[in-house]
Amino acid sequence: AGSDGLIHGLTAQEVRLLTKESLDARSLAYCPYSKFHVGATLLTRDGNFISGANVENASYPVGTCAERVAMSSAIMKGYRMGSFKAVGVATNLEEPCSPCGMCRQFLREFCELSTPVFLHDKHGQYIVRTLGELLPMSFGPEHLAA
Amino acid sequence: AGSDGLIHGLTAQEVRLLTKESLDARSLAYCPYSKFHVGATLLTRDGNFISGANVENASYPVGTCAERVAMSSAIMKGYRMGSFKAVGVATNLEEPCSPCGMCRQFLREFCELSTPVFLHDKHGQYIVRTLGELLPMSFGPEHLAA
Amino acid sequence: AGSDGLIHGLTAQEVRLLTKESLDARSLAYCPYSKFHVGATLLTRDGNFISGANVENASYPVGTCAERVAMSSAIMKGYRMGSFKAVGVATNLEEPCSPCGMCRQFLREFCELSTPVFLHDKHGQYIVRTLGELLPMSFGPEHLAA
Amino acid sequence: AGSDGLIHGLTAQEVRLLTKESLDARSLAYCPYSKFHVGATLLTRDGNFISGANVENASYPVGTCAERVAMSSAIMKGYRMGSFKAVGVATNLEEPCSPCGMCRQFLREFCELSTPVFLHDKHGQYIVRTLGELLPMSFGPEHLAA
Ligand SMILES: [Zn+2]
Ligand SMILES: [Zn+2]
Ligand SMILES: [Zn+2]
Ligand SMILES: [Zn+2]
Repeated sequence: AGSDGLIHGLTAQEVRLLTKESLDARSLAYCPYSKFHVGATLLTRDGNFISGANVENASYPVGTCAERVAMSSAIMKGYRMGSFKAVGVATNLEEPCSPCGMCRQFLREFCELSTPVFLHDKHGQYIVRTLGELLPMSFGPEHLAA
Repeated sequence: AGSDGLIHGLTAQEVRLLTKESLDARSLAYCPYSKFHVGATLLTRDGNFISGANVENASYPVGTCAERVAMSSAIMKGYRMGSFKAVGVATNLEEPCSPCGMCRQFLREFCELSTPVFLHDKHGQYIVRTLGELLPMSFGPEHLAA
Repeated sequence: AGSDGLIHGLTAQEVRLLTKESLDARSLAYCPYSKFHVGATLLTRDGNFISGANVENASYPVGTCAERVAMSSAIMKGYRMGSFKAVGVATNLEEPCSPCGMCRQFLREFCELSTPVFLHDKHGQYIVRTLGELLPMSFGPEHLAA
Repeated sequence: AGSDGLIHGLTAQEVRLLTKESLDARSLAYCPYSKFHVGATLLTRDGNFISGANVENASYPVGTCAERVAMSSAIMKGYRMGSFKAVGVATNLEEPCSPCGMCRQFLREFCELSTPVFLHDKHGQYIVRTLGELLPMSFGPEHLAA
């Protein structure tokens, strides 16, 4: 925790809930093909937790990942760029696992590069990286407008 | 309406709500690139309406469509194959518009081929096609198991 | 064969080659996750055969399908809408297998709805459906322009 | 150039060709929706240059990017993990532009993390980042096998 008592800007209670929600979301995964359960949770600045899990398809490229499901749900609730305080991800691996590149790109549209991403192992231990650390030199909306 | 008073298995009230929710969902779209607002709504057998809208990305292929957002949200609520009674889609076009092929494939994983898809025009007028009519000779889970 | 001696507009020799190329392409698949080998071949109006196979990724949604790989290669050679005479697809299944919805949509951008798609079984037997039959009421460029 | 006279492992001539091919490939893009032309080129260890450009679709998420088109073509020629010496990317922007997250993930399946990616501006000036720098803590095949 920093000198302000916060962990990457979150209270200890917020981190506890982000971890719990990220791990719990894994059980909702539809992943008959990979058997790889992933959970993801967004913490909004106004205090809501919004979760997602991976949803696979017989045509593998048609499926989607936990992080994108969580973010899509948040967009449906009206959240937009500026609304998010943190991202949590959890798998069933012994080591902390990181979002795939496609999800980093999807998150990038709505999260500041300074947004902390909590990468959990199966037991709930985590490490933290900012989105900017996970997707350096990222491609974004400002490039299309150029 | 059929001789049972139902419209493709739905009551008149269910159809009214499916239309309203599909049209309303369009306003939640994040579509700064296409400016093409799409709304989609799923009616579950237990009477819930779950909506989605398109969520675009500066890297166009990374974005997602209304139908997949709606279905992903439904999966997060525990719905699975067998849970869905109807699908609704709406755009701002003068003519009824149909899901893209990727979304037909995504829906196919969780909806029976007999599931009615209500295709709305911008005013709420609709035509109906079953998922099997929209995706004939479809590729699905049973092919991978073969 | 029709009264013109052609099979859906192709000569017997063209069909033989389309079948051979579609089946051969399967061996180029990178599919360590699904173990599902798919081959696809495009026949251009100027007599070239361009093939693709599925290319998977550890993040399943990031991978791509045989049909899209074939069509992307054709676009790189300068082919565009109006250039294609037929599509061939082949898997290792006992029954003819059809493109996923995402690939039907991808093909739709460059092939007329009347384009014949030859769906092969593992032995090279085939049935034929037009793209319009596989993707009825399709979404396409004209809808965005509206 | 390093003390070996090489630029990230490439000869000056290889870099010149990688730059030229990456820039040239932009003209093959099919991008009526974004008008954003991207070219990408792979240099194989056996000295071949394989290019791609973006191929868009009326349903934006169905399209694909230059880097994935180039890599898919390489896979069709039999190249696999271990085959690639460098990646080049070029757009029409004044500043060097980087692959989207989805493409970084796609490349990750076939390129070592040490593979140099040459990011060009519209004039052919470039900066170099390794794939590992662009996709730190990446998700890959070894995680699925765990
Ligand atoms: Zn992902
Ligand atoms: Zn769609
Ligand atoms: Zn496909
Ligand atoms: Zn990309």
